[in-house]
Amino acid sequence: MTNRSTHRTTPHRLKLLRTLVDRELRRALSSPPLGPRAVHDAMRYCVFSGGKRFRPLLALGACEAVGAAARRALPAACAVELIHTYSLVHDDLPAMDDADERRGKPSCHRKFGEGQAILAGDALLTLAFERLSRNSMPNTLGIIRAIGQASGTSGLIGGQVLDLQAMRARGARSAAAWRDIARRKTAALIHASVISGAMAGGTSRPQLARLSRYGRAVGLAFQLLDDAHDGEGLADVMGPGAARAQARRLIRQAQQALEPFGRRAAVLRELAEWLART
Amino acid sequence: MTNRSTHRTTPHRLKLLRTLVDRELRRALSSPPLGPRAVHDAMRYCVFSGGKRFRPLLALGACEAVGAAARRALPAACAVELIHTYSLVHDDLPAMDDADERRGKPSCHRKFGEGQAILAGDALLTLAFERLSRNSMPNTLGIIRAIGQASGTSGLIGGQVLDLQAMRARGARSAAAWRDIARRKTAALIHASVISGAMAGGTSRPQLARLSRYGRAVGLAFQLLDDAHDGEGLADVMGPGAARAQARRLIRQAQQALEPFGRRAAVLRELAEWLART
Repeated sequence: MTNRSTHRTTPHRLKLLRTLVDRELRRALSSPPLGPRAVHDAMRYCVFSGGKRFRPLLALGACEAVGAAARRALPAACAVELIHTYSLVHDDLPAMDDADERRGKPSCHRKFGEGQAILAGDALLTLAFERLSRNSMPNTLGIIRAIGQASGTSGLIGGQVLDLQAMRARGARSAAAWRDIARRKTAALIHASVISGAMAGGTSRPQLARLSRYGRAVGLAFQLLDDAHDGEGLADVMGPGAARAQARRLIRQAQQALEPFGRRAAVLRELAEWLART
Repeated sequence: MTNRSTHRTTPHRLKLLRTLVDRELRRALSSPPLGPRAVHDAMRYCVFSGGKRFRPLLALGACEAVGAAARRALPAACAVELIHTYSLVHDDLPAMDDADERRGKPSCHRKFGEGQAILAGDALLTLAFERLSRNSMPNTLGIIRAIGQASGTSGLIGGQVLDLQAMRARGARSAAAWRDIARRKTAALIHASVISGAMAGGTSRPQLARLSRYGRAVGLAFQLLDDAHDGEGLADVMGPGAARAQARRLIRQAQQALEPFGRRAAVLRELAEWLART
């Protein structure tokens, strides 16, 4: 779908953009050093634990796709990664998934204690919005709204609530119910990452509509592949093979949505291809 | 400090303003009905549990003090109350204060379970920022920044972290250490309530500086009186009598800061007097 030269250069671009994201995150988590050391240590431990930076890269890629410099979307990219990280910290808590490990290391509450993990999560969420309010992206309020909505009860938190209920009930859920959970818990923030990046780049309405399709498709594909890997959720009702096949179809649709953007969508294209390979 | 006629009318005004705040909160928590019912039930249970609405009333009072209609600050008022409520929900959790009751009723996690309480708190915090981004107050980004900073590791969360450490350590803390906790945990958001209300009303810089002094003094007085009541924190090192005396001095300073505002500061004056009576 991309031409040969983009194929050669894009992985390097991704690496470079990932470095920019990490630098922005480090800045957000260190300056000004206002809070007690303990909570900042916990926040940094969780944010710098080997995440792939998929969501921030989507924001930067979308910003580039609409014709702006990727770095203009850095505040939005940073915000979605902070929110993603807080959601993992709270999701791992004993009262939720009760996970002892995250990315091969002790989960935040195993390392710092449960109270500190709750507060570190709260602090990451608060920092995301506070940092967003301190920048000069066009339409910052629209970006806060998009990210806020995707993170609230209609999105991320709503998905966690339904997931928690499903876990407690241990009863069979329909594919539609699991799809609803996936859309809220995973696809909403992935979609908002794309949208907010496009908004930071000064997107037109038709561009936004296309990128919205890309974001929705990639977001659902992401959860389908995750479920297929773990044999849970959607993959549990559909079967892992069918879940993977649907993810592949969604990724093709996502790539099609990018066609009018040409080479400027190279990063978004590469991210979809990376997802297809996982 | 206020004249006779303001004295007679202000309690009615407070009641009216409290009704406006409750209506705004009800709107924020019901429409659009996007999330799973369970989490919205938990959020409403915590927000409508007999709180005094001190922080939102400060926002409305400050807006009025700078010459604007109080209702212009309703989005800011609503945001600070949602954040205050989330902080109580998370503070009551077993890993924190482990409180079974709040305002004479079962605490959120006792009523809805720990997982739901964590998520309800997260949702209240997210909703605060999301709602703020949806309004037409002047300087909305400045308001988000002020509230975000007061709620983050330099304010509210930082105070909780230090409080948690003090609780775990059970060692003696100096008055300075307790004052730092009080400033972060309580005074920061009370100060931000005043400031954000003034910003929503289109404050001038000199007005903001005076109201900032009022907010800081009232915020610290609030925690001193709370500690004096419970025989904890600052009152534990200073003695309850000295804590009360310092609170009274701070409230006098707060009232003095209001002098140039004349009758327009009637609500802020009444709130300080209410605090002095508690």
